[in-house]
Amino acid sequence: MKPYEFTYFRRVQFADTDMAGIVHWANFFRYAEEAEHAFFRSVGLSIQMQEENGAVGWPRVRTDFQFSQPLRFEDELRVQLVVQKIGRGSITYRHLFFRVDGEELIEVARGNVVAACVKMNSEDGTITPTPVPEQVKNRIQPAPRG
Amino acid sequence: MKPYEFTYFRRVQFADTDMAGIVHWANFFRYAEEAEHAFFRSVGLSIQMQEENGAVGWPRVRTDFQFSQPLRFEDELRVQLVVQKIGRGSITYRHLFFRVDGEELIEVARGNVVAACVKMNSEDGTITPTPVPEQVKNRIQPAPRG
Amino acid sequence: MKPYEFTYFRRVQFADTDMAGIVHWANFFRYAEEAEHAFFRSVGLSIQMQEENGAVGWPRVRTDFQFSQPLRFEDELRVQLVVQKIGRGSITYRHLFFRVDGEELIEVARGNVVAACVKMNSEDGTITPTPVPEQVKNRIQPAPRG
Amino acid sequence: MKPYEFTYFRRVQFADTDMAGIVHWANFFRYAEEAEHAFFRSVGLSIQMQEENGAVGWPRVRTDFQFSQPLRFEDELRVQLVVQKIGRGSITYRHLFFRVDGEELIEVARGNVVAACVKMNSEDGTITPTPVPEQVKNRIQPAPRG
Repeated sequence: MKPYEFTYFRRVQFADTDMAGIVHWANFFRYAEEAEHAFFRSVGLSIQMQEENGAVGWPRVRTDFQFSQPLRFEDELRVQLVVQKIGRGSITYRHLFFRVDGEELIEVARGNVVAACVKMNSEDGTITPTPVPEQVKNRIQPAPRG
Repeated sequence: MKPYEFTYFRRVQFADTDMAGIVHWANFFRYAEEAEHAFFRSVGLSIQMQEENGAVGWPRVRTDFQFSQPLRFEDELRVQLVVQKIGRGSITYRHLFFRVDGEELIEVARGNVVAACVKMNSEDGTITPTPVPEQVKNRIQPAPRG
Repeated sequence: MKPYEFTYFRRVQFADTDMAGIVHWANFFRYAEEAEHAFFRSVGLSIQMQEENGAVGWPRVRTDFQFSQPLRFEDELRVQLVVQKIGRGSITYRHLFFRVDGEELIEVARGNVVAACVKMNSEDGTITPTPVPEQVKNRIQPAPRG
Repeated sequence: MKPYEFTYFRRVQFADTDMAGIVHWANFFRYAEEAEHAFFRSVGLSIQMQEENGAVGWPRVRTDFQFSQPLRFEDELRVQLVVQKIGRGSITYRHLFFRVDGEELIEVARGNVVAACVKMNSEDGTITPTPVPEQVKNRIQPAPRG
């Protein structure tokens, strides 16, 4: 059975905060991406994959997030990533963000990210849709429904 | 008539890009926020408002974005902000992102952001929902439907 | 006479601040770079230059900065860039950072940046030193001494 | 004996890179700060210290860095922090940055940071120099010379 979920830990850094004293919302998208890339590494892949004629890339095509609680400097963050769907040319991830408070997990945000698979032509810079590589499909799978 | 839209221009900076050679997606949320704050300034407000007992803040509670085209270093970006809704305790913005190509505007992304109005207690750090201040309602309004 | 200085204006954005309520120091290096790239554009160049066999790049090899005053959200920043030296394979810039306060300029930071000229091989990713391109030397010059 | 050095590990994230395919230089200052804050935690302190009348802060007053090698996505970074000096109102850190390549450490950058100790008045926002707190001096010391 191939994996479909991953848990990523991360401490909130000073530079992640803003003058409101909490993590700036734009950083949640970086945290989500860090979890995704760590998930790839956990199954022996790198998001930075080479195919003939250039690199494979995963630009984001759609995302929605909800923020329910502030996250602060030095908080321990736990990101729970779940592969929702592997389409012909895209992968959909679901992320749950928790602040770790001793034994307790307090949800602070949740979100979905759809990443399209593309080929980045290193010569002319063009970006064209491409199917999800076999080596990715061989290593990960969508979470069972229900 | 109070304003409900705003156009914000911004050049893409080198540090906004990533190794894929395009603007990193997390920066679109920063661009949206820059447009929102410039909109506030355009009507004589600052997002950094003081009320009795502390500052007013606008943490984001919900957002969804779609990315359709890459944006690159030195591209001229035009963000078209529209106030969609002013609720009792929140404002909903719609953002359209265009790359300016001579006379032409190429849409590269679009998104919605719901910002809740809160009071940040400077003494104990608590964050509590508060109604949208009158001075804000006196200066901006939601865009007409249709 | 070729130019050797440039003035760059920039408003401090919310996401540039940290929980101390001031601009995070790492952003001053981004501001310096923005000024440098705007200077290049002002003389009809782009920092993103193509030569045969790949792009020219300007990785930083040395920098020193002094920070004297805090910079805050919505402050107007003026960066005064001066070309200190154009070496065989590098350019040295001096940056003065001022907060614009009506008619007054309050210095908030100053720094020096040495950028080396390199060729980035797009095929194998190697980075090798290269002389400053003629088109650059034709357009800019070091500031006169004294 | 009180500690004066600390080793911090960190993986390079995608969003840390720029279109040149390497870590953007401004991020090295964030890495240095992350190491500094982890050092404080390692001795039972937080950089976010409260004293009567407000928080203690550590704005940077001076820094110099040298960059010798590129750092790339997914590289393992080791930051070696050494306390160089504890003055009446400031601490000077030295940072060595290494890329971990199996058993080997390749130096990629080095730098010094002087952080001043200040009191941030939460009521009026003023920032005033203050001596390094006793609790800090009780836990860390400068590295021996030689």
